[in-house]
Amino acid sequence: MDNRPIAVFDSGIGGLTVVKQIRRLMPNEKIIYFGDTARLPYGSKSPETIVRYALEVAAFLSGFDIKILVVACNSSSSYSIDALRAKFDFPVLGVIEPGSEAAHRATKSKRVGLIGTYATVQGKAYDRTLSGIDRDIKLYKKACPLFVPIVEEGLYNHPIARQAAEMYLTPLLTHNIDTLILGCTHYPLLKSTIREVVGKKVRLVDSAQSTARLLHEVLEQKDLLSASKKQKDIDIFVSDVQNKFHKVTRIFLGKNGVNINKADLNV
Amino acid sequence: MDNRPIAVFDSGIGGLTVVKQIRRLMPNEKIIYFGDTARLPYGSKSPETIVRYALEVAAFLSGFDIKILVVACNSSSSYSIDALRAKFDFPVLGVIEPGSEAAHRATKSKRVGLIGTYATVQGKAYDRTLSGIDRDIKLYKKACPLFVPIVEEGLYNHPIARQAAEMYLTPLLTHNIDTLILGCTHYPLLKSTIREVVGKKVRLVDSAQSTARLLHEVLEQKDLLSASKKQKDIDIFVSDVQNKFHKVTRIFLGKNGVNINKADLNV
Repeated sequence: MDNRPIAVFDSGIGGLTVVKQIRRLMPNEKIIYFGDTARLPYGSKSPETIVRYALEVAAFLSGFDIKILVVACNSSSSYSIDALRAKFDFPVLGVIEPGSEAAHRATKSKRVGLIGTYATVQGKAYDRTLSGIDRDIKLYKKACPLFVPIVEEGLYNHPIARQAAEMYLTPLLTHNIDTLILGCTHYPLLKSTIREVVGKKVRLVDSAQSTARLLHEVLEQKDLLSASKKQKDIDIFVSDVQNKFHKVTRIFLGKNGVNINKADLNV
Repeated sequence: MDNRPIAVFDSGIGGLTVVKQIRRLMPNEKIIYFGDTARLPYGSKSPETIVRYALEVAAFLSGFDIKILVVACNSSSSYSIDALRAKFDFPVLGVIEPGSEAAHRATKSKRVGLIGTYATVQGKAYDRTLSGIDRDIKLYKKACPLFVPIVEEGLYNHPIARQAAEMYLTPLLTHNIDTLILGCTHYPLLKSTIREVVGKKVRLVDSAQSTARLLHEVLEQKDLLSASKKQKDIDIFVSDVQNKFHKVTRIFLGKNGVNINKADLNV
């Protein structure tokens, strides 16, 4: 048993979709969340910069005596996991492994689609992980850079979301995929629009759910689950507090048991 | 006469629209450009963070012995000009004053629209500047957060651009504006789509042109124009180099006489 907090980190607040699933599965775990809102988005930035940001944020979070770090950002998970594991003693969990395993379970045709940011799609992390699980899986990828701003504007059911989804997903559908990985923490909020475009036969893999499940498994195996019986608050730290921040947080997480702080991290 | 370089600064590379106009007007001026691509966009961030970033970037640029600093970013111009003038000895020019003066010359009905990022629209810089010029001018404002990603994706003539333009501009048109300030350096690239939505009677004010003209005026008055007769290269520094960077730079500026460098500014 281990009552120390779980740290969750994202470029912004999209990672709160992962927090939501962790909280549902393990309400008695203390969660500390960091959103690097002063420097978001990561998905359009270079691998070198993405890794540097991850190391800086993890150094900040390590000050809270955390028991595990969840990198809830696909762009960061695509490049930073090895560097983080090399530098820190706590276990580090990304979203790519659980997302890939869920896609493997879901696909029958072994033709899988992946949508995400430029960083995630140009990186090879999903390719490597999926072919490590089953080398017959074929992966078809598409960067969807407009999806994040559309979600942050709350336009998930607007005709603009539909039009963007058609633009991005139609080329993927020509490859007859039967499974689509939503490779960005913002995308679950676009699920119904994506569903309309891809139809009922394509299975959508939301890595937030599978990441929370894998986290539970890992904590259980390592005997790191909390002994507490009480539901714990979530402490959110952000590197910048914008006007729209509280609104967007509510979209992701509701407002119960959530404390928001400006992080003392001058980035 | 003064052969030292002009520095131009933006959150990203949208400010290259200003560089383009400066180069057209003063081809023999040496220009050093800084794009804070590691931390862009600024427009969704807090005033406090926007000011801190401006001071850091200006400190970097001051190392080049510059004769003047042009803040070619509306979000940064909305908050940082006073802090920059207080801290540095060189003159500092923003885009809001020239944009406001151009709008004042353009409007007959004194009903002016402003579109820009959240930071620019929530700030009061345009309101203050315009009412300083003519207190009868009424300003109607609308944040257009999807426009920047649409431009960066090269989708300015795509149906998505048209749909976004309708969503943002229709509410402004109900106020019978006769002039619209394009309060973000990316927006001139959306001019034809914006024109389709607002019709022929609304005059569009592109602050890039008016900023270049004001810069020329200021340099002339202070006897700071270059004595050189030769066309000068533009040295571009960015805090992060992404894959799509060279493509987007070409969209803004072409590729002649442009040198791109990664800035040694660990932000």
